[in-house]
Amino acid sequence: MVQVNVTLTETIKVLLDEKKYGTLRDILVTMKPFDIAAVFEELQDEKTPILFRILPKELAAETFVEMDDETQEFLIHGFSDSELKEVVDELFVDDAVDLIEEMPANVVKRILRQADKDMRKQINELLKYPEDSAGSIMTTEFIVLRPDMTAEMAIKRIRRTGVDKETIYTCYVNDENNKLIGITTVKDLLLSEDDTPVKDMMEENVISVHTLDDQEQVAQMFSNYNFLALPVVDNEMRLVGIVTIDDAIDVIQEEATEDIEKMAAVLPSDKPYMRTGVFGIYRKRAPWLLILMLSATFTSTIISSFDGILAQIIILSSFIPMITGSGGNAGSQASVSVIRALSLGEIEFKNTLAVLWKEVRVAVLCGLTLAVANFFKLLFFDLRGYTGAGSPIQIAFVVSATLVGTIIMAKIVGSSLPILASKIGFDPAVMANPLISTVCDSLSLLIYFAVAKMLLPL
Amino acid sequence: MVQVNVTLTETIKVLLDEKKYGTLRDILVTMKPFDIAAVFEELQDEKTPILFRILPKELAAETFVEMDDETQEFLIHGFSDSELKEVVDELFVDDAVDLIEEMPANVVKRILRQADKDMRKQINELLKYPEDSAGSIMTTEFIVLRPDMTAEMAIKRIRRTGVDKETIYTCYVNDENNKLIGITTVKDLLLSEDDTPVKDMMEENVISVHTLDDQEQVAQMFSNYNFLALPVVDNEMRLVGIVTIDDAIDVIQEEATEDIEKMAAVLPSDKPYMRTGVFGIYRKRAPWLLILMLSATFTSTIISSFDGILAQIIILSSFIPMITGSGGNAGSQASVSVIRALSLGEIEFKNTLAVLWKEVRVAVLCGLTLAVANFFKLLFFDLRGYTGAGSPIQIAFVVSATLVGTIIMAKIVGSSLPILASKIGFDPAVMANPLISTVCDSLSLLIYFAVAKMLLPL
Repeated sequence: MVQVNVTLTETIKVLLDEKKYGTLRDILVTMKPFDIAAVFEELQDEKTPILFRILPKELAAETFVEMDDETQEFLIHGFSDSELKEVVDELFVDDAVDLIEEMPANVVKRILRQADKDMRKQINELLKYPEDSAGSIMTTEFIVLRPDMTAEMAIKRIRRTGVDKETIYTCYVNDENNKLIGITTVKDLLLSEDDTPVKDMMEENVISVHTLDDQEQVAQMFSNYNFLALPVVDNEMRLVGIVTIDDAIDVIQEEATEDIEKMAAVLPSDKPYMRTGVFGIYRKRAPWLLILMLSATFTSTIISSFDGILAQIIILSSFIPMITGSGGNAGSQASVSVIRALSLGEIEFKNTLAVLWKEVRVAVLCGLTLAVANFFKLLFFDLRGYTGAGSPIQIAFVVSATLVGTIIMAKIVGSSLPILASKIGFDPAVMANPLISTVCDSLSLLIYFAVAKMLLPL
Repeated sequence: MVQVNVTLTETIKVLLDEKKYGTLRDILVTMKPFDIAAVFEELQDEKTPILFRILPKELAAETFVEMDDETQEFLIHGFSDSELKEVVDELFVDDAVDLIEEMPANVVKRILRQADKDMRKQINELLKYPEDSAGSIMTTEFIVLRPDMTAEMAIKRIRRTGVDKETIYTCYVNDENNKLIGITTVKDLLLSEDDTPVKDMMEENVISVHTLDDQEQVAQMFSNYNFLALPVVDNEMRLVGIVTIDDAIDVIQEEATEDIEKMAAVLPSDKPYMRTGVFGIYRKRAPWLLILMLSATFTSTIISSFDGILAQIIILSSFIPMITGSGGNAGSQASVSVIRALSLGEIEFKNTLAVLWKEVRVAVLCGLTLAVANFFKLLFFDLRGYTGAGSPIQIAFVVSATLVGTIIMAKIVGSSLPILASKIGFDPAVMANPLISTVCDSLSLLIYFAVAKMLLPL
């Protein structure tokens, strides 16, 4: 099969240069917003505002939401006020808020000037909620029903008011004080008899979140309960917004990336890798590298203070990377298991002892396995023909015994630090690999020299 | 505030012992399936089958799906054949398949005997698809419409057939050969005029996946395109199933956990941490620990072969953990950024050079920062009052120069290995921290001794 060597973006660029706007429109309307946005990002051309004007109004707004902030800003600068108004009018409130949070102040002013009064009010309400709270990711457009409506009336209401709502499938039933008293779905409404009152079919045991709840917990509830949307209430249990599942998925992806970054000692970033500049990446990585390098002072100090031992049996120094490496690996295995279980809500502080007991038993098994393998490896490979101070068997035994102690220590440190961190309100992910490795490195060296001093003829 | 010290599970246990079945039912029907399942798991009691019988039929099936496999198996053993049939009849096909994949052979036989003929056929179809494929997570129950139906007819059809479908909100339009030609939603149907034909409102540019596509890609499409369900087609473009968003979320969580485990050198597990026994965890962790320990032979060999240098300037050995540690950290930062970008679809093989060029520049910045900090730290702290061979300035310079070289090397190794792994069909996550650390350890020692030999009076 011959491969097509021209990309879609290249074709679109040519068509744009040739002003074939009809053809361009035919192409674009076959595509999904996510993919059209990717074309805009790849183009990065002064002609993109023209291309944007070709899109039908609704598709244009949906595409705009999918773009990265640089492309959005570039386009806004090319918009006339009335063009900007058209886009803003089509946005859902939560998307408008996301946009405003990313744009510089002068662009924000222009956007707010174009939004109609009602939307401006809603945007300002949402902007008040702290970052990463349920309030900050919710939308304020949803379907409200009354308990005494019939299924038929409810469906009519949805048909009349649904067009501007982000989801119509979950409907919220409020009492006369706007307190949330139940939830029903379009599925229930459609599958009921026309004259069934909403109050007879609604689910009254509503699971809701508070505006200030953490977005990670909110996202986890979607995965536990299979919701399509989750109501957000204020202190008086009044319904103020809903979080929809598409935003929950984005949060899940974001939080997983953040956890992974923290585990690798990278400060969390909110931009994709390829879009972050060299200095941006440097700023995310250098601080932890520096902290970890400085904390390695402990290991240097420990080694220097035992340099008498090393000078007598210099071969002991050749096993240091293997011992500290095994300790670091064993510790990070334990910490990662515990961190992930914490963030999926599988374990809590009250499980600390159960976790430690489990880890100690795993550590004894792992430690013995490594010790036995190491003993024979040293005897028949590394120490073959060794003629320095101490017999090969003695040295192999010292290293193997150190391994058992190191791995038990590493699993205890690796599993307990994240739980403690989460108990005192830190993010457990920060306690992962590198920090734990540094602690484990120092402790494993202390074990090594203690064992050597005890068992070798020094 | 006084804290309640009795848990819900304890209360339920007491009520169960006292045979207060009415009260128990009142409690359980207020709860969500996920939480009821947690109660069953905590109870682990021979009376759980009685408790299960108290649940209304539909809630019982929904709760059953949420339980872990041990609890499911325990319950099935307590079920009569007719009770089992009741549960199986209420399950969606994809949940029945998940159940069957987890149960031992004799239980599977009992389940299949109770399933009606049509369901048994569908289950057997689904079991044919490879693990982690779109086919293995799809369900075969969905709403099919014809292009010439009107909106009103379509709604009627949904009201008649929707009760057994996992989702009714996305409807699939097939031609007379069962080829998928369009998609429409209940929202579109409700917001259209009654006599609008489906073909006029359906989206014809349907994004679909193939039965054999990888589940991770499928889940990523949900996050890109904000779908609630995604159609799965066979080689002839016939619609054979749909993947719903709740299953996609589970896949996203699973894959993130798997990536994180692989990065920490833990073999991926499909059971939650607290439910995995000590031997289970041991088997997931020991292999990598062993491999990494054995591969540390390289570092030992390198150190031994330079023991002449170390014997002359013994203080050089005290900086080994700091150098290998910084290299390992720098390498894992790069690898984690690249691995995450690969799995979110942000970079591909063709970006290799761009990634390398970016990483080299970041490495030079990070390396210089660490080198300067390290130079002064050594001069004014570690080497203060040093009187051995070589001047403090010389030694500090050797260590700092090694750091620059090590970090550049580590960032190149850390960013290129995952891309290469993914190119030749391996999972890039396996190339993460520990393996890269081992490679970086050896290379950084070689750099260290080369620099020392060149610059120190040996």
